[in-house]
Formats: sequence, C-alpha cells, structure tokens
Amino acid sequence: LDTLARLVDGQLSGDGSIRVSGAAPLYEVRPGVISLLDGAALPTAADLRQLAALVVSEDDPAIACAKLIVSDPRAAFAQIVEYFLPRRGTAGRTPTSLATIDGSATIGPDCQVSPGVVIGPHARIGARCRLMPGVVIMDHSEIGDDCTLFPNVTLYERTRLGRRVTIHAGAVLGAYGFGYQFNGGQHHRTAQLGHVVVEDDVELGACVTIDRGTYGSTRIGTGTKIDNQVMIGHNCQIGRHNLICSQVGIAGSCRTGDHVVLAGQVGLKDHIALGDGAIVGAQSGVMEDLPGHQIYLGSPATTQREQMQIMAIQRRLPELRRSVKTLEKNLQQTAAEPRVNVSVERPAPMSDERAA
Amino acid sequence: LDTLARLVDGQLSGDGSIRVSGAAPLYEVRPGVISLLDGAALPTAADLRQLAALVVSEDDPAIACAKLIVSDPRAAFAQIVEYFLPRRGTAGRTPTSLATIDGSATIGPDCQVSPGVVIGPHARIGARCRLMPGVVIMDHSEIGDDCTLFPNVTLYERTRLGRRVTIHAGAVLGAYGFGYQFNGGQHHRTAQLGHVVVEDDVELGACVTIDRGTYGSTRIGTGTKIDNQVMIGHNCQIGRHNLICSQVGIAGSCRTGDHVVLAGQVGLKDHIALGDGAIVGAQSGVMEDLPGHQIYLGSPATTQREQMQIMAIQRRLPELRRSVKTLEKNLQQTAAEPRVNVSVERPAPMSDERAA
Amino acid sequence: LDTLARLVDGQLSGDGSIRVSGAAPLYEVRPGVISLLDGAALPTAADLRQLAALVVSEDDPAIACAKLIVSDPRAAFAQIVEYFLPRRGTAGRTPTSLATIDGSATIGPDCQVSPGVVIGPHARIGARCRLMPGVVIMDHSEIGDDCTLFPNVTLYERTRLGRRVTIHAGAVLGAYGFGYQFNGGQHHRTAQLGHVVVEDDVELGACVTIDRGTYGSTRIGTGTKIDNQVMIGHNCQIGRHNLICSQVGIAGSCRTGDHVVLAGQVGLKDHIALGDGAIVGAQSGVMEDLPGHQIYLGSPATTQREQMQIMAIQRRLPELRRSVKTLEKNLQQTAAEPRVNVSVERPAPMSDERAA
Repeated sequence: LDTLARLVDGQLSGDGSIRVSGAAPLYEVRPGVISLLDGAALPTAADLRQLAALVVSEDDPAIACAKLIVSDPRAAFAQIVEYFLPRRGTAGRTPTSLATIDGSATIGPDCQVSPGVVIGPHARIGARCRLMPGVVIMDHSEIGDDCTLFPNVTLYERTRLGRRVTIHAGAVLGAYGFGYQFNGGQHHRTAQLGHVVVEDDVELGACVTIDRGTYGSTRIGTGTKIDNQVMIGHNCQIGRHNLICSQVGIAGSCRTGDHVVLAGQVGLKDHIALGDGAIVGAQSGVMEDLPGHQIYLGSPATTQREQMQIMAIQRRLPELRRSVKTLEKNLQQTAAEPRVNVSVERPAPMSDERAA
Repeated sequence: LDTLARLVDGQLSGDGSIRVSGAAPLYEVRPGVISLLDGAALPTAADLRQLAALVVSEDDPAIACAKLIVSDPRAAFAQIVEYFLPRRGTAGRTPTSLATIDGSATIGPDCQVSPGVVIGPHARIGARCRLMPGVVIMDHSEIGDDCTLFPNVTLYERTRLGRRVTIHAGAVLGAYGFGYQFNGGQHHRTAQLGHVVVEDDVELGACVTIDRGTYGSTRIGTGTKIDNQVMIGHNCQIGRHNLICSQVGIAGSCRTGDHVVLAGQVGLKDHIALGDGAIVGAQSGVMEDLPGHQIYLGSPATTQREQMQIMAIQRRLPELRRSVKTLEKNLQQTAAEPRVNVSVERPAPMSDERAA
Repeated sequence: LDTLARLVDGQLSGDGSIRVSGAAPLYEVRPGVISLLDGAALPTAADLRQLAALVVSEDDPAIACAKLIVSDPRAAFAQIVEYFLPRRGTAGRTPTSLATIDGSATIGPDCQVSPGVVIGPHARIGARCRLMPGVVIMDHSEIGDDCTLFPNVTLYERTRLGRRVTIHAGAVLGAYGFGYQFNGGQHHRTAQLGHVVVEDDVELGACVTIDRGTYGSTRIGTGTKIDNQVMIGHNCQIGRHNLICSQVGIAGSCRTGDHVVLAGQVGLKDHIALGDGAIVGAQSGVMEDLPGHQIYLGSPATTQREQMQIMAIQRRLPELRRSVKTLEKNLQQTAAEPRVNVSVERPAPMSDERAA
C-alpha cells in the first residue's frame, strides 16, 4: 500500500504495510484488492472484510478500512489499475512480411503494421501509426501521424484521416452511399464518387459505418467522439467536438454544429441541420432543423420542455379519457334533467293546478 | 423414404419406396422433397403435387401425401435436413502456417486455427477451439475449451471467454467504453483499463459489440444468448440465461438479473437495473430500474398493462379529441340557451299574463 | 473548361480557357473548382469568387460565373468528378499467393482474389468477381458472375449469391438464426441448417447481417438494395426491388412483397407480411401484416393518414388536457349555479308570493 501511495502521491490513512493483490471496482471486490469510492456506491460490510484499501477523496471515518486519500480519486485509481495490468508484450510487432503493402504506398517512421494488414496503391501513412491485424486501407487513402486502427477496420479508397485518430475494430469508412434512381421498375445506383474525411483527435467506435460523399466529402469534425454501431450517411458534415452515442443513425446530407450531443438510438432524417450545442435525447427522431443550445426529445423531436409535458399527459391518458367520459355522462344527465325550456312550460299546469 | 423413416425412427403412412430428392421447408417446396408440417402453415394443392412426403406429428387423412409420423417433427426434420446437407469438407483445417501466433501464446489440443488468424502474446486458448479466418485475439486473452469464433471476430486484450462460447462473425469484444471528460471545450478519453468476461455457454451474434469495463469487467452471464448487432456498454453486468434480441442497445453500467428478455431494438439508459425474469417489448426505452417477473413496454417503458391502455387510447386520440370538441360545443349551447337565472325571471311575466 | 465541356457534351456560357483545378460540391468549394447546381442550394457570393464554373441545367444570368449547360447536370458532374479522381492503380491485384483457396474450390476467369482472402472447400466463384482483402467464403458457397465483395465480408457455408451482387465491408451472411428452446432453465439452440440466398443485382451495405434459414433459405429478392447495419432474421423472404434503409431490423420469418420501402430504424416483428409497394416511415414498429401500396407510420405502425392525425393531436395533448380541465370547471360552475330542478321548485314560493 505504501508503494501505491507513493505512485499516486496520496495520503495514507491506515497500515502502509498491507499487501495489495490487485485493483478492482466495487462491483467486483476480491480479497486483498484496492478499490475506488467515487460516489456511485458504498462498500458493503462484506466488501470491507475483503478490501485491502479504498481510494477516496476524503477520509470518512465511518468507512472502516485503510484509505488512500487523493484529490482526483478516479485518476489515481486508473494509475493503480494500470500498475497491476499485465505488460502489453510485443503484440503485433511481428514482421511486416505477412502484411501486403503496395509498392507505391508510403509508410511513416515508427509505424506498427501487423500481419494481415493490406495497404493499397498510393496510400500514405504518417508516423507512429498502429495498424492492427486485418486492417485494409484502399488506394489513395491518407492517414495522419499517431493514428490507431484496431483489427479488421476498412478504409475505402481516398479516405483521409487527420492526426491522433482512433478507429475501433470492424469500423467501415467510405462504403457507397444509399442513393438510387428508380427507373423501369428497378433501382439504379447513382454517383458514389466522394470520400470520407476524419479530422484530428476523432475517435470512432467498433462497427461504426460512415458512407462516402456523392461527389465530395462526408466529414467528421475535429475532436468528435462516435460510439459503437453508429451509422453516418453520405455527404454528412458532422461538426467539432460532438458526442454521438451508440446506434445513432444519421441519414444523408445532415449537418451538425459544434458540441452537439446525440444520445443512444437517435435517428436524423436526411438533410437535417442541428445548431451548435443542440442535445437530442435517446431514441428521438429528428424530422426538421433544430436550433442550438437546447435539449430535444421525442419522435418527432421537439423541445424537452414541450416533450416532457406531452409525455406526462401520455402516461395519464387513461385518466384523461375517464375525465372525458365523466364529463359526457354529467352533461347527458344535465340534458336529461328538466331544463330551462322545460321549466318555462311547467309553470302553466302548476298555475292551472293553482287555478283549479 | 424408408431410409428416412429408419433414420428418425418414424412411422410411415404411404409408399416407402418413394425416392426423396431433398428436404425443404413448406415455403420452398421443390419436386420430390420432404417437408415439415409444424403448425405454421398448411401445404397448398400445388405443394402436395410436388411433395414426396411430409414430416408430421399425427396422420391427418385430409392431407393427401405420404407422411412420416414422429413425436417431435422439428427434431426429426432437422435430422433429415442434415442428412441431405453436403459434407462440410475440411474447411479451415489448412496449415496454421498462414496464421500468426505469438511465441508466448499457448494453444490447447485439437484446436483448428485458420489462415489469417492472429494470436497475441500470452494469450491462452483451451482445447478443441475453432478459430476461423481473420479472427484476432489480442494479448493476455483467455479462451476456454470448445469455443467457436467465426471469421473476423476481434477480442481486445485481456478478454476472457468461458467454455462452449460461440461468437459469430464480425463481433468485437473489449473496445474502449464511451467515456469522456469535457474540459477546455474538448472531450478527453477517461480510463479504459478493464476487460470483457463472457461466461460458459454464451452465444454472441454477428457484429455484436461489447465494450470493456472502466477498471474491471463488463460481464455476460452463463448461458445468455445475444443476437446480431447488439451493443453492450462498459461495466454492464448481464445476468445468466438472458435473451437479448437484435439491435438492442444497453448503455454503460447496467445490470440485468437472470432470465431477462429484451426484444428487438430496445434501449437501456445507463446505470439501469432489471430484475430477474423482466421482459421488455420491442423498441421500448428503459429509463428507470424495473422489478422482475413483469412485462414492460413503451418509451419510457412501464408495465405492459399500463402501456396497452395508453396505446389503445393513443390510437383513438382523434376520437377523444372529437368528444372534447363536442362537449365544448354542447356546453356552449347550454350556456347560450335560457338558463336557470333566466327562468327565475320568466315566471313573472307568465304569471302577469295569467294575472291579466 | 473547354476540355470538360467536350467531355460532357455541354454548352459553355463563359470563358472556355479558364483553368479548372478540380471538382467539388457546393458545400466544399475551393478556389478554381467546378461545382454543381442541382437545386439543393445556391452558391454564396464567397463561393462565386472562388468557383471556376458551375454545371447547370439552364443559364441563369443572375448567377455570375462561367457555366456548363447540360441536360442532366448530376450525370455530367459525376463524369467531371471522375475525370479528376486519381486512377485506381492496381489495388488488390496482388498475387493470390497470400490468399488461401481450398483445392476443391473453383474460381471463374478474370477474378481478382486479394491477399487475406480465404475460400473454403467446394466453393464456386463465377467470372470477373472481385474478392477484397479479408473476405471469407466458407464451404459449398456459390457466387455468380460479376460480384464484388468488399473487405472483411463473411459468407457462411452454402451461401448463394446471384450475378452482379455487391456486398460492402464487414457484412455477414449466414450466421445462425436467433432460435432457442427453453428447457431446464436454459436456452438450447434449435436447428440452424439453412442458408442465405441473394438474387441478382442486390446491393448490401457495410455491417449488414443476414441470418441463415432454419431448414431452408433466407432470401433477398432480385434488385433489392439494403443499407448499412440492417439486420434480417432467419427464414425471411425479402421481395424484389425493395429499398431497406439503415439500421432496419427484421425479425425471423417475415415476408415483403416487391417494391417495398422501409425507412431508417424501422423494426418488424417476426412472421410479418408486407404487401407489394408498402412504404414504412422511419423508426416505425410493424406489429401486424400490412397490405401494399400504402404508407405506414408509428409504433405500432398504422396508415400514415391515421398516424398523422394521432401525431398532430399528441403534439397538442397539453392543449387537449387544458380543454378538459376547463370543461370540468365550467360544468362544476353550472352545477353550483341554480339549476333547472331548482327552478321547478322556485315557482311555488313565487306563486305563493303572488297568492299572498
């Protein structure tokens, strides 16, 4: 524990000579591990019996175990987890003799090209890139410095990646857009001559697919992060520093501003524009342009405020319907009861009676 | 037909000397084939003219063709289909010289390692595993006995598979979770130090993606079956014997109990817990913890009972609105008609008349 | 510009000696490029300062730049974009010595088999096919003439492709259907003995997954186009010339007629039948058979007409609720006011008064 305290420059509350067997989050405590208290959950009594120590931001005496007190517990715990991880070894640093690199391609210094990689004619790879097994880079593609492509990523021809781009396994950049002309009962593929441009510091998740532009680019702006299984259609121009969560689908020719957030399973119709800082909630369907700096929900998506009201009423629709039924019954009763025009007639016999 | 009757130990109703050319389901009948009657559909007259025989559970004299009567028609028909299938041949049993296996990796007995497979340092593969072409197993991953990995599957470092795990083509286990910190206008990747654990007898569909835990595991419990294109976020703890249908998306840190069923395209918000035996209907969006042993629907998901009522009213919203309009009109008319305070005035002149 | 005018057989309005540096859509104008006016947007003043020329269908004098007037601007512009593209080079035409082709497989003339391709026993490939790096074709599969399989596509055993089929990167055909029997607390895989049939002129997007039939085929009809990340379940029989947009999920045993259109993220329950020419709007969920030649929306999907009414009212639910609240208040007030049955009583004392 002393060693770990020195590693993360933390203050120790407890016995520094405790031997720590590993690091694990609270949901997987094993005997002797150090864990993290980050507000999400508290250790159970059973956990406390097993834990060697906890990384915390302040010393809570109510939690009975050794503690490592630091200003940023998550960062410190990450360092500790890394300390216990097995060393990566030399994975993939195998000879490039099992990769297929076209003679006209250029590869920058200190690249790692794994077996099974195929690099097409006139491709250009920057410095310090890692191309993992099964990566296919088609002709005339260009990759900036310090990019990492995980296994089985495919870049179609003329794809352009900036610097420090990370692409996870199975992603596909540059497939043909879904554009057809209907003619004589059949669909005929239209021009698919464009390419995909991914700017600096972008991260793309596993099995993401981004289609090429029709004539020009489909573009992902600087710093944008895209989660697994997202689909981005042809000609889209995605802004900078967006967060696009898993399974979002963006149809062709959409544009997003900077700092846009799309939650999981959101869909955008084609040719939609979203303003800077627009946030769209999970499973929403965007059917029209939406201005920035607002939260949107629903399908079709409108402002969160409006949608929350609608959803609240939707949940109480049975109640609303009962109210209407009650109103109808009450009004019918009122109608069945003697009404004014009746009372105008009535006095006559009454006065007759009196007259009698 | 006699041969097939012996194969499935069935009772024959018809001419055993009929020559059967193959086996096909009822929707693809060709001349001379044997087909299956499993309740879904009946053969047409045209089918009956082509069929050599039908596998049935009881002899219905109204269906005029030879019959093979068995207690479990589906199982018997499966045996017959298999009888007609071409032999698999020796696919993939090619020399491992075209695979790349790190010297520090260990491979159990009777494994089939196809060409194009890449196995990283310190990986451990159990006995009788089939690793198909393009499979990439990164460093320190561990695979139990009798696992099958179909083509182009990627396991990131430290992935752990139990025994008898089947993973279909293109699946990706262990990509980084979608976790970022926003700082200075940019998103910075947080710790991605965990791994994926898949327990015994799990089956994962094509293009499934399961992200690694932040510090510890993302876990798929024993016997759980996951369909194609499902996304499971970082830190999720999926229970045992779940059924997760196609295109479901589960955000980070969710937990499901045992025997949970999620139908197609369901979404779960992050940090959701579902109880044992919870069933969530197609396209639902789960926004809060849900207890087990109930059926849920809708987005946001509530109990099926509640949601069925809501949906029924939603379909009749135009009717409800018309009712309200009618009520408004009626009430307005009532207001326009002579009302009580008027009738209180009226009697006076009437009595005047009488008085007159 | 003169050269381009001759290339597309266009009429020139402006100076033919202008040097054109490239071609780009209006959203990516750079100095010296030729662009396209196709109705979607007009060039800005800044664009006009940079543009060398515009391809147009008629000469609009209000747009101040050189113009190339043609009858089909998109087709002409496609030709021009292609003129400026780098030549493809010889990508993938590398020796097949790095591919693994089983001795019992047959490959037609003029095929391009890239490195990393694996072809199993008894597979048959037609003429002029392009199999890109990482493509895996398992045993007994058959591919017609002129097919293109992009990188890392997987065909399971006995898959059959017609002629001129295009399959984009990462797609998986023939994985096991999601069929299990529940027995003793566990799910047991049922028969998965069928295969996938793809007819002529079909195009399948990146990361599409199509599961094999249970006993027979899952079939995609002639001319059907399927976008990225679509999932098609076991036994489905998809009709001819369908358009299936991105992220659609079709559960097992569905049938679609000819010329069906499914927009993005649509889901179909299992065993659904859609008639010829049925169109289903984005994010809809189809829960019952739907006749053809109509547009459907919503989840559960009903006719567009019905759904548009429902959606319009849904957006105004708060208004509807306010109406009901107002009605309730008014009716209560009416009830509080002297009412008819009161007025029937009143005359008595009045007449008493008069009597008095």
